[in-house]
Amino acid sequence: MTALALLQETLGALVDVRPDALEEARADRSGHAAMGRPLVVVHAETVEHVQQTMRIASATRTPVVVRGAGTGLAGAANAGEGEIVLSMRRMSAILEVRPDDLLAVVEPGILNADLNDQLAAHGVWWAPDPASRDISTVGGNIATGAGGLLCAKYGVVRDAVLGVDLVLADGRLMRLGHRSVKGVTGLDLTSLVIGSEGTLGVVVGATLKLRRLVPGDVCTVTATFPGVRAAAAASAAVTAAGVQPAIMELMDAASLAAVHALLGLPAPAPGAAQLTIRTDGPAAATEADTIAQVLRAHEGATTVSHDREEGERLLAIRRSMHAAMASLGTTLIEDVSVPRSAMPAMFDEIARIERDFGLTIPTVAHAGDGNLHPNFIFEGSETPAHVWAAADELFRAAIRLGGTLTGEHGIGVLKRRWLADELGEDQWQLQRQIAAVFDPLGILNPGKVFEPDA
Amino acid sequence: MTALALLQETLGALVDVRPDALEEARADRSGHAAMGRPLVVVHAETVEHVQQTMRIASATRTPVVVRGAGTGLAGAANAGEGEIVLSMRRMSAILEVRPDDLLAVVEPGILNADLNDQLAAHGVWWAPDPASRDISTVGGNIATGAGGLLCAKYGVVRDAVLGVDLVLADGRLMRLGHRSVKGVTGLDLTSLVIGSEGTLGVVVGATLKLRRLVPGDVCTVTATFPGVRAAAAASAAVTAAGVQPAIMELMDAASLAAVHALLGLPAPAPGAAQLTIRTDGPAAATEADTIAQVLRAHEGATTVSHDREEGERLLAIRRSMHAAMASLGTTLIEDVSVPRSAMPAMFDEIARIERDFGLTIPTVAHAGDGNLHPNFIFEGSETPAHVWAAADELFRAAIRLGGTLTGEHGIGVLKRRWLADELGEDQWQLQRQIAAVFDPLGILNPGKVFEPDA
Repeated sequence: MTALALLQETLGALVDVRPDALEEARADRSGHAAMGRPLVVVHAETVEHVQQTMRIASATRTPVVVRGAGTGLAGAANAGEGEIVLSMRRMSAILEVRPDDLLAVVEPGILNADLNDQLAAHGVWWAPDPASRDISTVGGNIATGAGGLLCAKYGVVRDAVLGVDLVLADGRLMRLGHRSVKGVTGLDLTSLVIGSEGTLGVVVGATLKLRRLVPGDVCTVTATFPGVRAAAAASAAVTAAGVQPAIMELMDAASLAAVHALLGLPAPAPGAAQLTIRTDGPAAATEADTIAQVLRAHEGATTVSHDREEGERLLAIRRSMHAAMASLGTTLIEDVSVPRSAMPAMFDEIARIERDFGLTIPTVAHAGDGNLHPNFIFEGSETPAHVWAAADELFRAAIRLGGTLTGEHGIGVLKRRWLADELGEDQWQLQRQIAAVFDPLGILNPGKVFEPDA
Repeated sequence: MTALALLQETLGALVDVRPDALEEARADRSGHAAMGRPLVVVHAETVEHVQQTMRIASATRTPVVVRGAGTGLAGAANAGEGEIVLSMRRMSAILEVRPDDLLAVVEPGILNADLNDQLAAHGVWWAPDPASRDISTVGGNIATGAGGLLCAKYGVVRDAVLGVDLVLADGRLMRLGHRSVKGVTGLDLTSLVIGSEGTLGVVVGATLKLRRLVPGDVCTVTATFPGVRAAAAASAAVTAAGVQPAIMELMDAASLAAVHALLGLPAPAPGAAQLTIRTDGPAAATEADTIAQVLRAHEGATTVSHDREEGERLLAIRRSMHAAMASLGTTLIEDVSVPRSAMPAMFDEIARIERDFGLTIPTVAHAGDGNLHPNFIFEGSETPAHVWAAADELFRAAIRLGGTLTGEHGIGVLKRRWLADELGEDQWQLQRQIAAVFDPLGILNPGKVFEPDA
């Protein structure tokens, strides 16, 4: 029997072959779509459904693409010709919340924002907050090792997961990690799975490390600078001054102008870049004052707000970035990350690439942790060759500055070409061999992260 | 040529065959010693020396035991018959400190305390603080995934390493991780190496994630309780109350009595257990008051000190635990970890094991993170069978309560028998296969972590 027939026999109504469901699974929010159309979407509702699917996939050697909400930005969950899409969206329960132990056990298909809405009643939260938090799943956050706006102060996914339940390619279930805060028993496979983008197994459950809701005030500092380099230098100075903002977002002139246009706000001064900084906790007001002093010493026209709602309005400008870019054309959102002190140099490199390629590259940055999102805008659905050439320069510059190709979006298909440039050939081979231990038949998300052999 | 002859030819005076050097490398601070005597100690001074050693080891299929200061508590760095000891103690340089990027690049042989002494001048520190910090190396801390007293608030080694340079079994050098705070490029091999106890490669360098020195006060709260269960419940209540102590140490009656005797202090009331809690940072005094209220509501006779030196004197009682145990006999220090709310239940299990086996098991705990150190005391150098039987009960109880065999000491040789009980047979096999990808000849610390096939 074919994989499809076996799936239908075993999983009945969970097996979806509607053309629009298949079509939807080809693409994510990167704009990139896989070649051809997947075979089937399986809507798993239990761990057993996942195991059954993987057993059939192994028996028939059919590739499997695990998918959450499809909000990825690197094409890692895009499914193409002949592939099984294993959708985790229906597995969205919170199985346990323990405020006393600061942990929760959840299924992977729950949306990040839904989880946090429900946790708030217990006085706790899960810190990872990708900009996509309203629409992305916890399982997807784990698969990409997501970050977000708050991570300079509150950490990334890797800091916030105690254990994962993983279904292997052959359908076996494995429980990795533990419920205790500390634990060094054997190799840390939990950390290995985080950010592995569907290449090692299917995450069917997670034990999350929570934080208590932060008491006290929220203050918001905004500052406008004559140029992006000054803004970057000011943000590095904030970090160097020893204060720890909860959020520190930088917008360059092109980003700021695009968002102002989208929101119908008055146009900013030509060339002006902006920092939006939030402090929280008991020392929020003191820290905001210290930060304002640093910014003013760095040419920043600075205001401090102690009003929570006003702060939300100010941050809404930053949060409208994706919409503003989408209004300009198709967007390739990049995601390089560098040491914080290298941010001004990285902006110099972006300016150089803009000149060399005759492009405008609107860029925002999580400035508190050196993670930049340069945006390439173009017409149509295919990324043009000269944009990839410019991105190639961008990646090489980030690696040269001690940074990395991707701070939080992952490699997927869009960046696999550059993976060996960062890892080196030896480490690239070693990583492939490790993936093969989990997936000897090569049916888990083949062609993602690791480029297939030529 | 033999491995020894090749090493002598290649590395000359770095090759040490003095009987006392060989003898010393057989044991660590666990009291356990390997069978037989190693072949040679190589005192590596450069990465190239490490690579040369590994090339010779691979060519001659000679096992290699990497060793720092020999302060391990699970026998992981103990070298026996026919093995090469690769000592990293001479590679102890700090190569770079970047307070602005909150990172340092170091060689592995530097002592934790020496590193922090030198970092203090830059206003930064490396948070992991195992009780052995004065005598243990950063490389050893990484190899075990060490914790310490401060980790409930400031994290463990896994939270504090951005990258490691690793020499593989065949002598190739691989740079894992990066200098940026964020990064999700490929599989997280840095986390995989942390806590791998010398089974994956030789850590020859590390990029450490630093913190800024904590400004403000230090307060110390001590409380005495009628029994250990009450103390454990009180410490769980502190966590549940939402305050975050920097240190929260629990001593049971037997521990407290032994330390008081060693230090010549008046004997504590029979059965009395103690909590010693430190708060730090801008909210230290407020937090100390909140904690004192919680403790008093849980039968604790409580005092608060705002004096830093007085606080050090109070913590010195806890820090004298190892010496106090050593004065009673040979000590097997155990290291189970459980969810914080399960601490009272874990103390009940310890009391049951004491009754069932007719033993006294003095126990201290890092109560802020649920990590307990029960101590088994006996005569002579071999752990008696009934002590192992009691430890077996202890391990199974911890796993049953959602915890783990080892919170921060590692598996080494002493706990490898129980590894599959915690991981399950499938995961145990998978972990061995992953280790084999790094070390196909099986020459890296063979017999450690993973029990050899029968």
